This record gives sequence, structure tokens and C-alpha cells, in this order.
Amino acid sequence: MSVQIGKLFGVSLGPGDPGLITRRAWEVMQSDAHWTYPVRSRSSESYALGIAQRAGLVIPENHSPLLFPMTHDAAKLSFYWLEAAQTVLSVLQAGRDVAFLVEGDASTYSTFGHLARTLKALDASIEIEVIAGVPSFHAAAARLQEPLADVDDMLAIVPAGYGVSMLERLLDDFDTLVLLKVKPILNDIIDLLERKNLLEHSCFIEKSGAPEERIVRDVASLKGEKVNYLSLLIVKNPGRLRGEIARGCRKVVRVEAQ
Amino acid sequence: MSVQIGKLFGVSLGPGDPGLITRRAWEVMQSDAHWTYPVRSRSSESYALGIAQRAGLVIPENHSPLLFPMTHDAAKLSFYWLEAAQTVLSVLQAGRDVAFLVEGDASTYSTFGHLARTLKALDASIEIEVIAGVPSFHAAAARLQEPLADVDDMLAIVPAGYGVSMLERLLDDFDTLVLLKVKPILNDIIDLLERKNLLEHSCFIEKSGAPEERIVRDVASLKGEKVNYLSLLIVKNPGRLRGEIARGCRKVVRVEAQ
Repeated sequence: MSVQIGKLFGVSLGPGDPGLITRRAWEVMQSDAHWTYPVRSRSSESYALGIAQRAGLVIPENHSPLLFPMTHDAAKLSFYWLEAAQTVLSVLQAGRDVAFLVEGDASTYSTFGHLARTLKALDASIEIEVIAGVPSFHAAAARLQEPLADVDDMLAIVPAGYGVSMLERLLDDFDTLVLLKVKPILNDIIDLLERKNLLEHSCFIEKSGAPEERIVRDVASLKGEKVNYLSLLIVKNPGRLRGEIARGCRKVVRVEAQ
Repeated sequence: MSVQIGKLFGVSLGPGDPGLITRRAWEVMQSDAHWTYPVRSRSSESYALGIAQRAGLVIPENHSPLLFPMTHDAAKLSFYWLEAAQTVLSVLQAGRDVAFLVEGDASTYSTFGHLARTLKALDASIEIEVIAGVPSFHAAAARLQEPLADVDDMLAIVPAGYGVSMLERLLDDFDTLVLLKVKPILNDIIDLLERKNLLEHSCFIEKSGAPEERIVRDVASLKGEKVNYLSLLIVKNPGRLRGEIARGCRKVVRVEAQ
């Protein structure tokens, strides 16, 4: 008799506050699914697993850390993605569901995408359910009690490493910029915000919702400081010139950048 | 003896699937907080309340619909925001907490922002807690089982009404566009996607996670059709030219738009 192949769940846990775990994620974690979660090295702790633990959940006896190292080397990444997918596949083939726990939202800058893609390449018939979660920047806006996007606002989520000239250009079109991975160019970003008079409309948040959360409203004070990888800047751009509103279809009268 | 003033909770319920309600939202709804929720007219149903009902929650005896009509008339809007805030304030002043239920995320294109702002103007000392939720576009990506943003991707959330020339320009910079309120210019958008060979990378979702959810992968088939207000288009832009990567700081070699 053949075994019923298990199902893979992408279990989004939100950015750090266990209260932001969804009911569906909670239900799957409390089923008899085999827990897996990403780690950056064999010795490092899993941020996602930490959220589940802070929620009071007990880690099941059988669980597997999956290694997703911090590298941009495509060959290395492929190797580890394949290794992770094979680990998951063997559990599924033994008839057990697998819950892959991730921080934030599984569809948004998440290791889950790599795992799902690689697993589908190994066996296209595997059933997958992705449970959406609260992304870090939406949780950050809630903590700041400021809308991330208001009526008709344009919102951009941007890995800051693309450089300040890109960011400056986006200020013509967007009302809110969420800057991710700001660490390597934070000083340049602060200079840009100062030049554009946007420092007072900017806020820095590190590890939103986690016990070590840090909110810095005086962004200029971060100059020269080292910041965590799990940090972001929310930049509101209230001076943006918007075009005329045409009902039904809004027509924008472009105002050239100064 | 003075009464302890209540606290306002912005309770995000996610876009429609009751499984995407967070544990914190659930907890507040099951406290003795007075429920309030937005309606578009005195006779219309509340989308947010519908999510809570589908989750199996019983509406408390005392609850207040708050009227947020669909208008762009600033004077009318101010009137209704003030009326809503006064209703909430009177409950808070009677010593009761208020839960304002909203679909999606309370910080993202939500009536909650108007309510909180107006309430703070009436009484700056009122305590507010915003409970973040899953936004519709993240839930939509989960349903499609396609990443909304992959490593280093640029993501834009855009009210489509700004027009197709704006959308076309954004294709130079962004890997994913989420187009909201597509209804009035859907035909023009479809033409643009066809011209840019992006139809096969686009997907339309209406009322993600609700019982009447509709997913349309053949976006061109929507030409001439009427679509719901609660719908969006996810456009992936795989052909975007990215610049060279410089480690630490990524430098982009701009390729001029054709």
C-alpha cells in the first residue's frame, strides 16, 4: 500500500510579535506537521523559531533546521536550496506534512520561495499551501501609529542598496518609501533625507515586534552607527506634487523634478 | 470618582480569509471591547464585520457601524470622520474599550487612519493600539503561490488611476507592480501589458480569501468586463534590466528606457 504524500505549508509568523501570528499558522503549527525553519549556519538560531517559542509553543520532538546561508554565490545557494528541498521531500514522502516556519510573510523576500520552487522542480505534484503573514513594514507602521499608505498614496518597497540616486528619483513618484537593508549606505541615505528635508518624516525600526525592537525617530542620530540586518526606514514624502484628479480615471499633470 | 477612559484598538482582520486573523486581533475581539466597523452607507453591510462573522464570532449586543461614505468631497469626509470619532469618543469616555474592525491592514489604505487622526484631534490623550494585519496583496501572492518580492526585488503598490504612462515608467525600476483600483482604466492597462509582453506575468485577484474570491490568470479576458472595487492586479516584470552589483553598496548602471 502506498503512503499518502504529505503537504508543505509555508507558515508566515509575522515579523516578531507572537500576537501577529495568524490563526491558520497557529493551527498548522499545532497539527502533527513536521517543523522546519531556516537557519543561516549550523550553529545559529532561527529567528522564525524564536517567534513560535515566544508564542508559548513547544517545539515538537522531530524538527529540522534547514540551512540557507547568507551568500550571493549562485552555485552555493542552489546547493543549499536543493539540500533543503530534499530534506523536506523525504519527510513528505514518508507521509508527514511539513510546516516551514518563516518570519514576516512567506511571499515577501523570504527563503520560502526558494524552497517551494526547488521542491516543485523535484516533484511537481507536491501540494503546497502558503499561509500569508504580516510583513515587517506593515507591522512597523502599526507600531509608529502612522499610515503606511493613505488614500491614493503610492508606496514603494525598496532594497536601499540600489543607491541614493535611485531613491532620490523615486521621491518624484512615491508618497512612502520603505527602505530595506539600509546598513551599507545608511550615511548616504541620511544625507539625502537631510538635503530633501525629509528627516522629520522618516523613522527607523529594527526588529519590529521582537523583545529587542528599536524605534529611532531621530534618524540623523544613526549616522556612523551599525544597524541590524532586520531593520528598515520608513520615509514619508508629504511634499510630493500630485497631479490633477480626473474622476474615474485620474490624470496626472507631471511636474518635472527640480 | 472619575471613569478610566477606554482604549481604541485598530483591529486588522486581513483581506477576507478568517484564517488570516491574527491572534492579537482575535483576543481583542473576544474581550469586552465595543465593536465598531466601517460601512459605506446606512444600509450597506460591513466587509470587515463579515470576516469576523465567517470566523465564527458572534457580534456583541452593543456595536456601532461607523459611516465612511465613498466620496472625495473633503468637506463631506471631514463631517463623517468627525461623526465617527465622536461616536468612538463617547464610548471611550464611558470607560469602555473600542475595537474598530477593518479589512486588510489598518495602516494601509484604511479608514482607520482617518478615525485615529480625527480622534487624536478631539483628545490627544486617548490611548491607541494598532494591530497590524495581512494586506490584500500579500494574501493574493500566497494564493497564487508566487513570490510578491524575491531577493533584491523592487516592489511598488500603486493606485492604477494615476494612468498608464505612470505605470509604464515604473516598469523601468520595479520588479513587481501591485495595481489597486484598476476598474476605471482596466482596458488601458491590458493594452499596456500586451504591448510590454507582460500579460503572461500578470494575474488578477478579486476579494482574495473571501468566499467569492476570483483569480483570473488570463488577464486579457477581462477586457470590457466590470470588476469589483476590492480587486488588484499583480504584474511581475522579469525582463527588467538590473545594474551591476557592488557588494555592500549595490551600484546600478542605469539602462535608459527604450
